[in-house]
Amino acid sequence: MSGFTVAVSGATGYAGSEVLRLLAHHPELHVTAVLGHASAGSTMGEHQPRLGAFADMVIGESTAQSLAGHDVAVLALPHGASGRIAAELEATSPQTLIVDLAADHRLVSAQAWERFYGSAHPGTWTYGLPELMTAQGRQRERLAAARRIAVPGCNVTAVTLGLQPLIAAGLIDEAHLTVVLANGVSGAGKAPKPHLMAAEVLGGASPYGTAGTHRHVPEIIQNLNAVLGRPADDSGVRISFTPTLVPMARGILATITAPLAGAALDDHGAVRAALAAAYANEPFVRVLPEGQWPHTGATVGSNEAQLQAAVDPAAGTALISVALDNLVRGTAGQALQSAHLALGLPEDLSLPTEGVAP
Amino acid sequence: MSGFTVAVSGATGYAGSEVLRLLAHHPELHVTAVLGHASAGSTMGEHQPRLGAFADMVIGESTAQSLAGHDVAVLALPHGASGRIAAELEATSPQTLIVDLAADHRLVSAQAWERFYGSAHPGTWTYGLPELMTAQGRQRERLAAARRIAVPGCNVTAVTLGLQPLIAAGLIDEAHLTVVLANGVSGAGKAPKPHLMAAEVLGGASPYGTAGTHRHVPEIIQNLNAVLGRPADDSGVRISFTPTLVPMARGILATITAPLAGAALDDHGAVRAALAAAYANEPFVRVLPEGQWPHTGATVGSNEAQLQAAVDPAAGTALISVALDNLVRGTAGQALQSAHLALGLPEDLSLPTEGVAP
Amino acid sequence: MSGFTVAVSGATGYAGSEVLRLLAHHPELHVTAVLGHASAGSTMGEHQPRLGAFADMVIGESTAQSLAGHDVAVLALPHGASGRIAAELEATSPQTLIVDLAADHRLVSAQAWERFYGSAHPGTWTYGLPELMTAQGRQRERLAAARRIAVPGCNVTAVTLGLQPLIAAGLIDEAHLTVVLANGVSGAGKAPKPHLMAAEVLGGASPYGTAGTHRHVPEIIQNLNAVLGRPADDSGVRISFTPTLVPMARGILATITAPLAGAALDDHGAVRAALAAAYANEPFVRVLPEGQWPHTGATVGSNEAQLQAAVDPAAGTALISVALDNLVRGTAGQALQSAHLALGLPEDLSLPTEGVAP
Amino acid sequence: MSGFTVAVSGATGYAGSEVLRLLAHHPELHVTAVLGHASAGSTMGEHQPRLGAFADMVIGESTAQSLAGHDVAVLALPHGASGRIAAELEATSPQTLIVDLAADHRLVSAQAWERFYGSAHPGTWTYGLPELMTAQGRQRERLAAARRIAVPGCNVTAVTLGLQPLIAAGLIDEAHLTVVLANGVSGAGKAPKPHLMAAEVLGGASPYGTAGTHRHVPEIIQNLNAVLGRPADDSGVRISFTPTLVPMARGILATITAPLAGAALDDHGAVRAALAAAYANEPFVRVLPEGQWPHTGATVGSNEAQLQAAVDPAAGTALISVALDNLVRGTAGQALQSAHLALGLPEDLSLPTEGVAP
Repeated sequence: MSGFTVAVSGATGYAGSEVLRLLAHHPELHVTAVLGHASAGSTMGEHQPRLGAFADMVIGESTAQSLAGHDVAVLALPHGASGRIAAELEATSPQTLIVDLAADHRLVSAQAWERFYGSAHPGTWTYGLPELMTAQGRQRERLAAARRIAVPGCNVTAVTLGLQPLIAAGLIDEAHLTVVLANGVSGAGKAPKPHLMAAEVLGGASPYGTAGTHRHVPEIIQNLNAVLGRPADDSGVRISFTPTLVPMARGILATITAPLAGAALDDHGAVRAALAAAYANEPFVRVLPEGQWPHTGATVGSNEAQLQAAVDPAAGTALISVALDNLVRGTAGQALQSAHLALGLPEDLSLPTEGVAP
Repeated sequence: MSGFTVAVSGATGYAGSEVLRLLAHHPELHVTAVLGHASAGSTMGEHQPRLGAFADMVIGESTAQSLAGHDVAVLALPHGASGRIAAELEATSPQTLIVDLAADHRLVSAQAWERFYGSAHPGTWTYGLPELMTAQGRQRERLAAARRIAVPGCNVTAVTLGLQPLIAAGLIDEAHLTVVLANGVSGAGKAPKPHLMAAEVLGGASPYGTAGTHRHVPEIIQNLNAVLGRPADDSGVRISFTPTLVPMARGILATITAPLAGAALDDHGAVRAALAAAYANEPFVRVLPEGQWPHTGATVGSNEAQLQAAVDPAAGTALISVALDNLVRGTAGQALQSAHLALGLPEDLSLPTEGVAP
Repeated sequence: MSGFTVAVSGATGYAGSEVLRLLAHHPELHVTAVLGHASAGSTMGEHQPRLGAFADMVIGESTAQSLAGHDVAVLALPHGASGRIAAELEATSPQTLIVDLAADHRLVSAQAWERFYGSAHPGTWTYGLPELMTAQGRQRERLAAARRIAVPGCNVTAVTLGLQPLIAAGLIDEAHLTVVLANGVSGAGKAPKPHLMAAEVLGGASPYGTAGTHRHVPEIIQNLNAVLGRPADDSGVRISFTPTLVPMARGILATITAPLAGAALDDHGAVRAALAAAYANEPFVRVLPEGQWPHTGATVGSNEAQLQAAVDPAAGTALISVALDNLVRGTAGQALQSAHLALGLPEDLSLPTEGVAP
Repeated sequence: MSGFTVAVSGATGYAGSEVLRLLAHHPELHVTAVLGHASAGSTMGEHQPRLGAFADMVIGESTAQSLAGHDVAVLALPHGASGRIAAELEATSPQTLIVDLAADHRLVSAQAWERFYGSAHPGTWTYGLPELMTAQGRQRERLAAARRIAVPGCNVTAVTLGLQPLIAAGLIDEAHLTVVLANGVSGAGKAPKPHLMAAEVLGGASPYGTAGTHRHVPEIIQNLNAVLGRPADDSGVRISFTPTLVPMARGILATITAPLAGAALDDHGAVRAALAAAYANEPFVRVLPEGQWPHTGATVGSNEAQLQAAVDPAAGTALISVALDNLVRGTAGQALQSAHLALGLPEDLSLPTEGVAP
């Protein structure tokens, strides 16, 4: 069998099983091990009956030893657990490409890590957002040589894609950014918690992680500073960030507002034009035709982020709307996008841009 | 029978039938006529089987003549239709208290009306938001003498309640307000439209009425200018306003952000304290205990708006969150609140502050 | 204060808090104690922000001592816990009317209890279904003298109301009953469980408690045997009973099928006529106009069960459809209905027949 | 380009666009025309932004001429419209494989067609259910030679798959079948109707097409008679069939009950064993491990039907539960399954068995 072998740790969770779904019919990446902890010894079908191709595959124990020797190790574990197993795996199987879906290796600033995660900084890996418009060029160039990939947070992906072309072009005021998100519940993971029970979620909307407390805030700031060529925790980027939980399983709708700046003050068309130009050649970011606004439903199961922008002349603001599937474009899909680059495969190989809707 | 007679026009719609629900066991207001157009001649039970008390009541033709002679006429009609029937009713039954749930008589500025509604300004009635903190005192004083009441828009109610104490106290910058709302679909009414079909709405979120085009914008600006003692369309208040449709039937969650100003720059506690003080004695506005964020589910069927606020020090912003039921607190409930005042009844008579949740 | 005092144990749960909602504006029943276990010492508002009237009420420790001395004790506890506290309360406060929302005292047959609940039979109380058409007349006559009330299961209520008139009249074959239910998730309670997480429930339907294993089966059989004047566990009534979990918070839609029998074989109209006659004077059971089928949405928050029936001539079967709110008509509402009877109050006092829809 | 050209008529609808989704990355079937009526001249992206691969494809006019000359014509049109365009296409392009997703050519009995559809019988095509266990063998043998394929109804597929092995083995009484379905709203199509509005559907369940009136009834009877080797409308098969609308976009959960018969009376294990044996080698029908019940969520976007069965000894009945995606396994997916057979391609080519869940 040509291609690469892939082991997935945390295979029964929402993110890990979504990696499996995307690999079920992949021409080059072959799942050779599915790993778990409490589930070890049982079959995937007992935990994820949705995955026909893996129904009878037996789950192994999630350890660095089990991951070692595979071409690719995907870590779909809680942060902390992810960092620990990664450290051991790096030592024993240095040739393995490690793709970490957790937060452990995303942040450059040790100080920001410690403030938001309350533990010692586990280090920084190559950031897995191929479209990131850093001051030195798009991030995909860096991913081609990566052996350790930190996959971005789902909300971070939506906000970064929506803001970076306007920040880069100086069309909005980066010190007064406001982001409100409508979030599907799968983003909170599979572990039972009172506020995630269906009876609580159905029929209602509620904010969480409010007023600067959400862990995705320093990651967004780091990305926008990378666009501006500034240090990761430079305080010039300021963002009010409010996720809200709404009754849907998947999806992020990011509604982003910022005061107009620079050329956009006189040329309102520059806002949408900057978005369109930035993503004209990107396979997984689509700016919708003018006047058509994103709907998260259109992105379910797809690796495509959909964007739109408009200017509110009376308010003097730009409005950017971004929809994506938190488990695909926000996690498992972009993990494979980055892994493809690191393995020398076509970035868009086998990744869907079609949503399962309605 | 003591009390007052009430005729409801548009009785089978979402807003009109919600007025009926709230009147089903009302001690002083007695429903003596339910009126409709296409439904005239049939029973309420055929159109609103949810209303046990009115199941066998026959629907009359919705005309000014049918409304005349009742103590109270509630108009739950599309704007335009509402203005026309109101004009005729005012002439023929001047003693009837008219409560208009539509937009026709909300705006003071004829120019704003024409720009957003594209028709001649139908005039301005007493604005039915008892808690409105105008520069001359709360609006309830004015409602005591009212014979014509314009009930506020549902989104407008949420945003005004959230912002007015902070605007009044100068704690936020009124020129840089950002509002994003998660809206239940019932706010869009009962008429079938493609984007309101269940298959389209289930599982997705999408913005609408974006970038300053929503008709609730001038009404919010008018209210905040009333708080500041400025002309209704003074341009000093600027607001980015983005409603989003999410998969829930009822409810509005307004997420409001603004840069800190005045005393709040140094005293972050001033923000929540101003909210708490403003609503300490209000029967239908509750500021939640610190750290507990509103959930629209808790307000379903209730006339209570629930609020919370916090400061994001890094962003330099205040975050205010407001949840309410668009059909009750946002429409039918506050219509009765205002009608009670106009009729000399206790403002909170028979109005629920208990939500039907989960 | 005239009227009766009421203590509610398990006040923060779905059933207990729904009792509170229905008592918030009750003219004769006054909530004098709210009790809990883990929640003792905190306020109701922290656990049930939906209940404006009780937001500041402090939760006491749920013990028999706390319940003693009140006119009415409502037990909204898991079965087992309910039986234990009831036994203690009966001894210390014999004059208190005890209303048990749990299953402990519903079953007549000790054998059935032991088979389905796996513990010693806690005894049998007066069954709290006023409309039950026993061979000796409606159950409400028995409730007038009751001091101990066992409130029926929610599914049991739906199925009994749907079937009893046809069983009583011999219009269907009681040995071949089939019931499939669409159930809202609140029926499963508030304790977090993996299959009740929103991400699992949203967008899907699944059966549970299949093939005769559900604990509501012996209770339904007992009721139908009471209608027929047979022993509680007589095997002549046979029922296939399959609940299914669907993505809604509240509501039960029972779809009941049975082969035609007796007069209905020749006179298909007899089926709907029997339903209509049985409930013509019942305040909380409504047979819809012919051809209009129940929708659970119409019953949310209401104490009304809505029914319809039709005959399928080709299949030779009757179809009965019943919709109700599991927490109101199926639990808290009918608990108050029965308590009213036991206290000599009007059965329908202050209980809503209006649903909160859409 | 090797492979076959495909034209899809009704491309913007739910069924038609789902065919496109499944063909987006198909190795042998290439979409060469997308056709519509009101949408002709616009791009797919305006109507189905979910389909990245087709976003810029311009919609042609849906006529027999536009369809002619393609290797495959998929008709995703309302019944009636489908029959008319098919008749014209057959005459002008006899070599084109026509796959009709509508009902026009499904029924063998002209009498049944006329009774349920109220028009002249348009004829009978090869029935597109490869797994159908006819008395002469599985239907896939017939499909290998087909040039005209009538794709089964979605509910019919679920019920037939669930019942046929038990009917064939005589393990249940085919004269007393009961089926209740939980149906997602997408099955009702995209045209706006009052009862399909999100506000009506969210939070409620309701039956429709009750008491033998649903058009899928004669089709189920025809299939089961085919299994028994009887005429299509033989009256020996009798079925009570009740679909119910629940708040989900996709999915069918069929709950099927029948009295035990034959060997199953003594050997309860025979029921599940018959299901397991019948589908052991079927790529798109999976009998779950004993005790694990189907969840429609697991089948969303997948062509796999998931089944389970159990016996209720007290009721003397078999319970069969079937979950599938109405738009994939119930429509577009099985259309391609059958088309593959007719074109000599592998039946399972490129069809997913992985669901998009949660």
